[in-house]
Amino acid sequence: MSGTFVIAQGGGPTAVINQTLAGAVTAIRERHPKARILGARHGVRGLRDGSLADLTALSAADLARLARTPGAALGSTRDKPDAAYCEAVLKGLRAAGADAFIYIGGNDTAGTQLILANASGGSIACVHAPKPIDTDLVENDHTPGFITAAEFVAGAFAGADLDFRSLPGIYVGIVMGRHAGFLTAASAAWRMNADSAPHLVYVPERAFERGRFIGAVRAALARHRRCIVAMSEGVADAEGRSLVEGLIPPEQLERDPHGNVRLSGTDLGQAVERMLADDLPGVRARVDTLGYLPRSHAGVINATDQQEAFAAGEFAVAAAEGGSFSVALQYDGESTRPARIPLEAVAGKTRHMPDDFLMADQDQVSDACIAYLSRLLPPKPDFAAPFV
Amino acid sequence: MSGTFVIAQGGGPTAVINQTLAGAVTAIRERHPKARILGARHGVRGLRDGSLADLTALSAADLARLARTPGAALGSTRDKPDAAYCEAVLKGLRAAGADAFIYIGGNDTAGTQLILANASGGSIACVHAPKPIDTDLVENDHTPGFITAAEFVAGAFAGADLDFRSLPGIYVGIVMGRHAGFLTAASAAWRMNADSAPHLVYVPERAFERGRFIGAVRAALARHRRCIVAMSEGVADAEGRSLVEGLIPPEQLERDPHGNVRLSGTDLGQAVERMLADDLPGVRARVDTLGYLPRSHAGVINATDQQEAFAAGEFAVAAAEGGSFSVALQYDGESTRPARIPLEAVAGKTRHMPDDFLMADQDQVSDACIAYLSRLLPPKPDFAAPFV
Repeated sequence: MSGTFVIAQGGGPTAVINQTLAGAVTAIRERHPKARILGARHGVRGLRDGSLADLTALSAADLARLARTPGAALGSTRDKPDAAYCEAVLKGLRAAGADAFIYIGGNDTAGTQLILANASGGSIACVHAPKPIDTDLVENDHTPGFITAAEFVAGAFAGADLDFRSLPGIYVGIVMGRHAGFLTAASAAWRMNADSAPHLVYVPERAFERGRFIGAVRAALARHRRCIVAMSEGVADAEGRSLVEGLIPPEQLERDPHGNVRLSGTDLGQAVERMLADDLPGVRARVDTLGYLPRSHAGVINATDQQEAFAAGEFAVAAAEGGSFSVALQYDGESTRPARIPLEAVAGKTRHMPDDFLMADQDQVSDACIAYLSRLLPPKPDFAAPFV
Repeated sequence: MSGTFVIAQGGGPTAVINQTLAGAVTAIRERHPKARILGARHGVRGLRDGSLADLTALSAADLARLARTPGAALGSTRDKPDAAYCEAVLKGLRAAGADAFIYIGGNDTAGTQLILANASGGSIACVHAPKPIDTDLVENDHTPGFITAAEFVAGAFAGADLDFRSLPGIYVGIVMGRHAGFLTAASAAWRMNADSAPHLVYVPERAFERGRFIGAVRAALARHRRCIVAMSEGVADAEGRSLVEGLIPPEQLERDPHGNVRLSGTDLGQAVERMLADDLPGVRARVDTLGYLPRSHAGVINATDQQEAFAAGEFAVAAAEGGSFSVALQYDGESTRPARIPLEAVAGKTRHMPDDFLMADQDQVSDACIAYLSRLLPPKPDFAAPFV
């Protein structure tokens, strides 16, 4: 495989997706010193449109700088190619002389690679490297980007708890995650003790019910004199209808090209704020949408996450030597290592939180969930208990 | 002054307000080894209600832990005492046997100290130590808590820029600050070059006009293929009416006990989102409310800020030996030092951004503003320029 490697990035950018890119470039140089390395701009769109950057001659200093830079340096895309689009992408890959295509992204990206692998008839190694911050890929213990985003969320809620202990009230922090609640659960990673926030955790894996929510907030206020709530943007009712859909007039709902209701806006925050004002009038209540900050804030980037993301990129190159695969970060009880997985096993599938990560009788995460988070995140800060 | 020091914390908590508390405790022990040290819970409310914590015997380890803990460990209050309330507070101070009262807070807190100093007829040294994250106190170069919050904001916008360079669109980040735009201006501290975000900055010091805003967003999109906007929650029109008041139906407006419109909710974010959807339909636009994160996130706490906050607390003790004063952080052209200022000079006054911190013809901060921020903040991260 001394020919040409093409690399691209898809879906939401993360703090470490460029580490995976840099890891792949590094491994290609080591293992295939004569290979040409091309980056497709804005994912498969760059292959369709013939927009490629030549990365072959990047200096070591530029590569190191690229690795530590958040965001997708090649640009990204939300396009989910159909068969005709894939045909155009394949044409682009052939025009570039690609022997291997490494596409860094989520389960849609794995799906694209599966289509391309089949369509190329094995002539191009199509490898998927993992990326989602909400760690919703099956076969993975967690995915690159998750640890950084989780550390941000843990710090946000540990801080909000101390803030609201000073000036009591209700705080709701809304966290990214359409189908999987891992990132919202990370709000509990740095709880100091049984009095600590978050007092309530709402994730897409459990049906949300307004009456139960308000009752739980009331009970937490009585017990803790404040109530800190972590809520996934993808929270839904028992019928699977997202909270946003239930609260916003249909004509105001924004949908993406795939018909998914937009969750990342302020709609949910606004709706929760109104719900609290209606049902708990006179109680100070504040809602913040953490939005893009956990995946993009330039000041919180986890070193383990960076190393794992880089290693996943390196491993993707080795995997490509054997054909088309998905790279998964797996935990063997002692350490996390990248592994080679059939694309079929990952493509289009969504991983949810294990049922035992949530308490049965409370809107709260379990000790098993805390143990998982503690294994991944830095130790909680050693903060003093307030005098109030 | 071997008697009793009382310390309290007022207004919004910050990442370093406990440093000031710890600095004061440390200085009292050094300068007045026999003094008793009491903390009033929830500011003047604790003095009115007789709720005090004895801090005299805090261990060195506990004091160090307290110092690095965000939030107001003594609890805080938004009460602005009138004359009768102040009489009750004074009674509380006398009951505690206070020789000095150090109150850490903003310009309202300085106002309370001024009333108490006059009412006590000089028998109790009433010292105000500075705290606001939006650095809106006159006589101060900046206030403790600002550097931390500004660093958080700088990192948020540097990261959002890279995120939106990957997936183009409009991003609006709403930043705390009712009257002063320093914290919103900090969004520009880590701009890499002329293409970098924020492309537009809106602060309370300049009248906001919807048509001009939409035109500027359109121009930025054409020029940069994305538009990152930093907006103060206190942005107002030419008549001084806050943007929230202009956009939200009056019956939905929430007001605090002082009649101030609540700015920290999601109302403004929602309103801006609707404005963009109406005037720039079809363009991807996202609004995040940074809310409490800049002042409370447990993972971003600036070391210089910690040191300056601690020093302000130490200095407040020395100031109290001379009577009633406000402590201000002043810059002499080489270094920042605490100084003793008459309470009258600070109480109830609001510092705004200097006019030359904003460009005359663009919705953008000036080089003078960047120079000010660069003096205070850590150097910008050395990130790579993306390939798109």
